[in-house]
Amino acid sequence: MTEDQFFAELFSRLPSPGDDVVVPPGDDCAAVCVDDEWLLLLATDQLIGDRHYELTGCNKTDPELAGRKLLARNLSDIAAMGGLPQYCLVSATLPPAVDTAWMQRFLDGIVTLAKQYHVDMIGGDLSGAPNDAVASLTIVGRVERCYVCRRRGAAPGDLLLATGRFGNSLASGHHLTFEPRCAEGRWLAQTGRVKAMIDVSDGLLIDATRICRASGTSIELNPEQILKRSEGVPLKEALTAGEDYELLAAVARDDAAKLQKDWPFAEVPLRQIGTFHAEQTPRVYGMGGAPLLEDNDALGYDHLT
Amino acid sequence: MTEDQFFAELFSRLPSPGDDVVVPPGDDCAAVCVDDEWLLLLATDQLIGDRHYELTGCNKTDPELAGRKLLARNLSDIAAMGGLPQYCLVSATLPPAVDTAWMQRFLDGIVTLAKQYHVDMIGGDLSGAPNDAVASLTIVGRVERCYVCRRRGAAPGDLLLATGRFGNSLASGHHLTFEPRCAEGRWLAQTGRVKAMIDVSDGLLIDATRICRASGTSIELNPEQILKRSEGVPLKEALTAGEDYELLAAVARDDAAKLQKDWPFAEVPLRQIGTFHAEQTPRVYGMGGAPLLEDNDALGYDHLT
Repeated sequence: MTEDQFFAELFSRLPSPGDDVVVPPGDDCAAVCVDDEWLLLLATDQLIGDRHYELTGCNKTDPELAGRKLLARNLSDIAAMGGLPQYCLVSATLPPAVDTAWMQRFLDGIVTLAKQYHVDMIGGDLSGAPNDAVASLTIVGRVERCYVCRRRGAAPGDLLLATGRFGNSLASGHHLTFEPRCAEGRWLAQTGRVKAMIDVSDGLLIDATRICRASGTSIELNPEQILKRSEGVPLKEALTAGEDYELLAAVARDDAAKLQKDWPFAEVPLRQIGTFHAEQTPRVYGMGGAPLLEDNDALGYDHLT
Repeated sequence: MTEDQFFAELFSRLPSPGDDVVVPPGDDCAAVCVDDEWLLLLATDQLIGDRHYELTGCNKTDPELAGRKLLARNLSDIAAMGGLPQYCLVSATLPPAVDTAWMQRFLDGIVTLAKQYHVDMIGGDLSGAPNDAVASLTIVGRVERCYVCRRRGAAPGDLLLATGRFGNSLASGHHLTFEPRCAEGRWLAQTGRVKAMIDVSDGLLIDATRICRASGTSIELNPEQILKRSEGVPLKEALTAGEDYELLAAVARDDAAKLQKDWPFAEVPLRQIGTFHAEQTPRVYGMGGAPLLEDNDALGYDHLT
């Protein structure tokens, strides 16, 4: 069972949320009503030693980079909704392998990035644990109701735009040092032209599939555009390795070129990498319907296995 | 180093939060501005297998009760601020000792209590972990700005009121089955007469000390009132064992009797258990200044040791 399936099953058993829950679980953030103009965005994500970074191996991750990564992942979820981050709360365990000096450096990594993104750390919990270093962060942000971007909303004929590059995140250290696409996501949302958006954390294929599933479409991806300027990364790596923390945005065909032309982030490419099609099975395929990979089962990262 | 000291040190190094952060870290919840009338309350707390409940021992805790406990602890934090709970987000690890069926029951425990308290579960994250079952919950609620209760605000001469009974929580199973004092906290807050409030999670002495430290007072406790109807619980157990999840409220001497008279919760006693005094060292002592315990160092539960 994948994490998506697990939560889909869990949330299907929940009572319907109140009308104040404008975006229920299943997007990068939930959104609840604050007033007529603004929605509050909320998401939670965790980071586990020796799973998301090296805690005990021979190539130990700098604890400040590990802490940074935890907040950056959450900021990426706010970016995917087109929002502004505001607050965070952090829980962490303190296993025997970790001392308070390590934990202070881990939290310093969060605090330094939080300052940079004008996020106030407003709560925390720290507890001993038998073995593992587990940290969990809840991010709180806001977005105008008229600009909120969801996974659903892509339609046949729409184009898929992607920021940045894909693949090589683990080997290059990108997964520890990436800048979350907050400014880019905010700019895209405020054009009013984004029909659906998601961040790529688990892999381009799996996250593109999530937009398809939410929107009731399929998508044809262009491997040539995906690999452009990606310096010899194999296609399978670019499609499935994950931890890219780039944004995928669905826009109407007529809007794409203008968005690319107006795009103000010179350092970050914005490319058309695919086209949505009317096929309700959320299938992802290559140009002209060809399979993208020999082994199409290897869609991407699955949290539970 | 205790958890309080750790966070005090961390938060002292943070930049001052924005004016929208009305209650900064250090209370049971942080509070941020929503509009002229309401504050948003946010807190996070975690629950760790074989630390807060039995995961692998011979007396395994029902996973639904463990999940219930995680939410109930967080609800108790909202109660201590006088607030109404609204939403929660849950992160959990799935170590090898736990399967998805166990996790579903754990989450069912959260969901069942959430329904009872009209809390919508709006987000989640699930990830494998090498060894430990760690779950973290962020609770979101609201409270009127005019009613929010903090730890600070008690003054010399004020009386300390306490709900319920103290001690015996682990042996009796109270720590798994308690009803968080949300209705009681809300009622107290809405009287407009509460000057400071906290919930007792770590132990009566340590949590009373937290009110003293935040308010710049000391407190004289009445052991006879604390032990009333507590069925043979030793004083030390009542004072230090923790996991009581009762409320401590500081009120002016003139208000105490009326609050007790009007108290609408027949099943839950509301007792005067202490008097605040003007001594800025946050000292807790018995009647007439006598020591409460032979070993005054054993104040209560410390999360980090």
